[in-house]
Amino acid sequence: MTASRSFLSDNAARVHPAVWSALREADAPDAPYDGDALSRQLDESMSAVFGRPCAVLWAATGTAANCLALATLVQPHGAVVCHRDAHVEVDEGGAPGFFLHGAKLLLAEGEGALLTPAAIDAVIDPVRPDVHQVQPHAISVTQASEYGRVYRPADIAALAQCARRRGLGLHVDGARFANAVAFLGCTPAEAVGGADTLAFGFIKNGAMSAEAVVLFAPEAADLVRYRRKRSGHLQSKGRFLAAQILAMLEEDLWLANARAANAAAAEIARACGGRLLHPVEANEVFVHVTEAERAALRRQGFGFYDWGADAARFVTAWDTPMDAAQALARAIAAL
Amino acid sequence: MTASRSFLSDNAARVHPAVWSALREADAPDAPYDGDALSRQLDESMSAVFGRPCAVLWAATGTAANCLALATLVQPHGAVVCHRDAHVEVDEGGAPGFFLHGAKLLLAEGEGALLTPAAIDAVIDPVRPDVHQVQPHAISVTQASEYGRVYRPADIAALAQCARRRGLGLHVDGARFANAVAFLGCTPAEAVGGADTLAFGFIKNGAMSAEAVVLFAPEAADLVRYRRKRSGHLQSKGRFLAAQILAMLEEDLWLANARAANAAAAEIARACGGRLLHPVEANEVFVHVTEAERAALRRQGFGFYDWGADAARFVTAWDTPMDAAQALARAIAAL
Amino acid sequence: MTASRSFLSDNAARVHPAVWSALREADAPDAPYDGDALSRQLDESMSAVFGRPCAVLWAATGTAANCLALATLVQPHGAVVCHRDAHVEVDEGGAPGFFLHGAKLLLAEGEGALLTPAAIDAVIDPVRPDVHQVQPHAISVTQASEYGRVYRPADIAALAQCARRRGLGLHVDGARFANAVAFLGCTPAEAVGGADTLAFGFIKNGAMSAEAVVLFAPEAADLVRYRRKRSGHLQSKGRFLAAQILAMLEEDLWLANARAANAAAAEIARACGGRLLHPVEANEVFVHVTEAERAALRRQGFGFYDWGADAARFVTAWDTPMDAAQALARAIAAL
Amino acid sequence: MTASRSFLSDNAARVHPAVWSALREADAPDAPYDGDALSRQLDESMSAVFGRPCAVLWAATGTAANCLALATLVQPHGAVVCHRDAHVEVDEGGAPGFFLHGAKLLLAEGEGALLTPAAIDAVIDPVRPDVHQVQPHAISVTQASEYGRVYRPADIAALAQCARRRGLGLHVDGARFANAVAFLGCTPAEAVGGADTLAFGFIKNGAMSAEAVVLFAPEAADLVRYRRKRSGHLQSKGRFLAAQILAMLEEDLWLANARAANAAAAEIARACGGRLLHPVEANEVFVHVTEAERAALRRQGFGFYDWGADAARFVTAWDTPMDAAQALARAIAAL
Repeated sequence: MTASRSFLSDNAARVHPAVWSALREADAPDAPYDGDALSRQLDESMSAVFGRPCAVLWAATGTAANCLALATLVQPHGAVVCHRDAHVEVDEGGAPGFFLHGAKLLLAEGEGALLTPAAIDAVIDPVRPDVHQVQPHAISVTQASEYGRVYRPADIAALAQCARRRGLGLHVDGARFANAVAFLGCTPAEAVGGADTLAFGFIKNGAMSAEAVVLFAPEAADLVRYRRKRSGHLQSKGRFLAAQILAMLEEDLWLANARAANAAAAEIARACGGRLLHPVEANEVFVHVTEAERAALRRQGFGFYDWGADAARFVTAWDTPMDAAQALARAIAAL
Repeated sequence: MTASRSFLSDNAARVHPAVWSALREADAPDAPYDGDALSRQLDESMSAVFGRPCAVLWAATGTAANCLALATLVQPHGAVVCHRDAHVEVDEGGAPGFFLHGAKLLLAEGEGALLTPAAIDAVIDPVRPDVHQVQPHAISVTQASEYGRVYRPADIAALAQCARRRGLGLHVDGARFANAVAFLGCTPAEAVGGADTLAFGFIKNGAMSAEAVVLFAPEAADLVRYRRKRSGHLQSKGRFLAAQILAMLEEDLWLANARAANAAAAEIARACGGRLLHPVEANEVFVHVTEAERAALRRQGFGFYDWGADAARFVTAWDTPMDAAQALARAIAAL
Repeated sequence: MTASRSFLSDNAARVHPAVWSALREADAPDAPYDGDALSRQLDESMSAVFGRPCAVLWAATGTAANCLALATLVQPHGAVVCHRDAHVEVDEGGAPGFFLHGAKLLLAEGEGALLTPAAIDAVIDPVRPDVHQVQPHAISVTQASEYGRVYRPADIAALAQCARRRGLGLHVDGARFANAVAFLGCTPAEAVGGADTLAFGFIKNGAMSAEAVVLFAPEAADLVRYRRKRSGHLQSKGRFLAAQILAMLEEDLWLANARAANAAAAEIARACGGRLLHPVEANEVFVHVTEAERAALRRQGFGFYDWGADAARFVTAWDTPMDAAQALARAIAAL
Repeated sequence: MTASRSFLSDNAARVHPAVWSALREADAPDAPYDGDALSRQLDESMSAVFGRPCAVLWAATGTAANCLALATLVQPHGAVVCHRDAHVEVDEGGAPGFFLHGAKLLLAEGEGALLTPAAIDAVIDPVRPDVHQVQPHAISVTQASEYGRVYRPADIAALAQCARRRGLGLHVDGARFANAVAFLGCTPAEAVGGADTLAFGFIKNGAMSAEAVVLFAPEAADLVRYRRKRSGHLQSKGRFLAAQILAMLEEDLWLANARAANAAAAEIARACGGRLLHPVEANEVFVHVTEAERAALRRQGFGFYDWGADAARFVTAWDTPMDAAQALARAIAAL
């Protein structure tokens, strides 16, 4: 497998040249932690993206960003409703339990790892409102979802309304938020709806080590600030994280990168026909392939993860060469 | 104040060119998290430094490195004995309480923020060995200390013996461990004595965002691995953290950088005479100066933190120009 | 509803006269906490019950007893496998998350709220053994189960073997352990199999406020001792809790009481025929009854909880009058 | 030592006959947990005591009562200012760290274990208001103090004003609140000042196993209710705890018992003259006595704890016979 034929994950993709430039430019002494000029610029730059005031704090991982955001919405004796296959439930090593001091995750069902108000009702309605059962404090959805599905503006608005009606917070895990916006062609504000908090991911999309905790209730920033330090996530050279985020926001690089990744995924999807497990809306392609077919693809140098016994997951990134995507598409079509 | 006249902190110093090179070289796809070749190299490289097998995990901050290490030694119902002025007590925003699930810090006295077996005994002896009082599980010392003082090999050996005698773990906060080794002229192994864990700092000494959790009982690595993920500190592009540490270890860059910082501090110290609050053994210089004298120094462009009402702290770094140190020395001598 | 026609719960049943006597006799000054003669007697008395050495600590609730026991088996970054309907999951207000510092519960399926090795395998096998997923550290089963079902000695032995094979601890929630033993007619040791810990319940069975944490690895007692104090469960007049447990053990009062409760339940069950949701093996009877039938029973003065839309739960206790059980049986038969 | 000559602790004193009667009367089935008539009576009965609306929840230990109350005032990343010798710091096995999820205790000085606004300022003023240092969220004082000293109404009012000025909560550990009120001869409301929460102790004063969490901001009750369950402190037969508290409030039994204990202590104090370490204001007498003198007292059958090398602590309780106190007084006078 050559690097260019790897469709394993966007997780470990290369760092975008503009991010490298910003990192190098940031290498001059400034105030430590988040007192530097770049970190102080984040609120304004992100508020421009969303067209409304928000507070922004950097964090080095999506897990930390998600959990720091959730901590503004959930008390230790409460719970978060999320999808059974949500990253916070399945792939964060129990971090929500740590950051939220033992709060629970309540698991909802939904096609494509997408939640609906009905699915949330189905989880919450049976919870007796007494002290013997853990009460929900917030809802967490992933935009785009763990299966590469995207909430439409109306979907996310309905979820926000559901949350408000029940007095719950709404968090958006946006590890691939850029891919969702690129797919929707709407504004970032529409893609996040009335959520309270967003973990806006950049690492899978061209950054090195910076995600943004975006707080649409900016007064929650103080709590995140203390919890970030307390969890060891306040880096002393924070300017290097802020620089990455600002570089990604500059001239909507985040959107351009996500469009490139999505386009590569779409190219692959077109070749898959009935093999697709899920409609391809972002940069992940889940494909029915037999064990033998997977072996055939691997012999051609393609890298990817098995997805259960008879499927595979292909992930594109901002730097996936289009000809690699086309080669994969051809290979799948030829199976 | 020009950057070169800033003696505020080594915390926000620039990144060493060799680290930049290593970062750029690491920018090729590899396995995510810590499955990449660089991360897998750490154990061997660090074991060579200490001349004994150790397990090494990167973390983005000293706070995280300290707390992850301590979590291998302390249970939630236990306590850590540390100096009253230790960073874990004073400057980590309560992170030990978070990572150790409410374990306590028991505060000992000692000149120069250095602990001695006697100071530790004075804290532990009055603790009744019953469930009403929190029992110590570990000792944490800082090498070099928060006041720039350095434990001699015999000192640290005595502390390790004290810990062993009492059945306690011994952790070394080595945010400035390089400066301590540079001062001592001994081996790293001698400077860390029989400690169980070391948070080996590189960020203040030329790295961007990588510290090393060093475990002299390598079997503890598994616990740190799970806790690192759980605390959101497992970065997906971990190769960039490993690259920094390996670059710092390469040809003992860490030691060369620390020697440069120490030399600059020594240059300043020589001009201070009776003004010194503490002997200068690493890269921090604490100086008695009046309010008026501080103003005079600031008028000359020097940057530094006030230290109480009538003193100042000057910190040098790997990149402090020797002529800047000399200029400061002259300015202090001329007060 | 007269008290005697209440089948709501064994939770709030009266205190047995022998327990009252023991409480009164305990009302003489003795050492505080668990230093009194009665508390110091527990290990020996309970070891006699199980025919092997065990350590015993009192706690005022089953929730505390379960969680203190589990804390000896599970680290904060680990998980407990339990049934989806287990009390620790459903009815303890998130206490395991609190006592275990955010450890997870992994939910298994099984008829009658009973687990099997296969059901446990189905939960654990898909857990990837990497840091992104929370690893199981222990299994928790309820004997008798939340639906009044009882593990046979061979069942519990198989579970213990499954736990050992996987390197997991095995905890038994024995809120109704007495009812299980009474049903099985085996020794207490056979009913608990090779479990590591047991929360032996007395409160539902004639005590006022004392459950026993039974540790079959007595060296775990120290940890429970510290955690009990730390969770505010070390009562200063602990002699009153120890007295209750000793009174219940005296001449196997616990077994006699459980037999009485089981007999009353069996009497009701015999009248239910095909209406039973679960075989009645302990002191809980789950019965299909329509809304109208429930109303009819309530008009006759019977108290019970609805169980979903078309069923009811009847619970007997040590003090359920047999004629009340017979009256209920007749009323159900007459529906 | 006969029981009547024991001055070891009020901790393990006998249960008052009125409490026994109330317990026996409570032994009729009622709703479980805190749904019974007695538990539902607590708010009203306690509001009458304090002449203002308050919410009241029972808990089985003072440690639990203190920590559940503090959890309404302190977030996990915050701190509680308390006296260096406060029970929460010294004698609760780290329970505040557990219940408050790692929040810190900041230790203040003060004669007789009493705090003053100045002592609190001395602790808080040096805390930099930044994320690196843990910020205070509440103050905790003990009324009567750990050395048997009592805050006057003006003292506690000044502390409440200090708390309000700084935006902090104020908690009163009232393990011996009754003794304080008995000494002051003022109303309970005056003795608790403008505190937000009170852990009102009954166990040392004639109850068996019930303390009251008193919330002067009744809307905090919901949080305590969930946290009480989550910490395993919601007993299923809660009626037995409520019964104890109601019995103690009935005709001010709590006050009569405290007066008796105080009177016995005063009797002893009168004999001590210059030997007293602290003025005797409640039911604890700290006395300078040599090792030889302690031995002499013990030979006469008196029981007490050593207090360091050359002092002793004598504690009286509601049931200390006055002639026993007089005998001790004579024995001390005769030393």
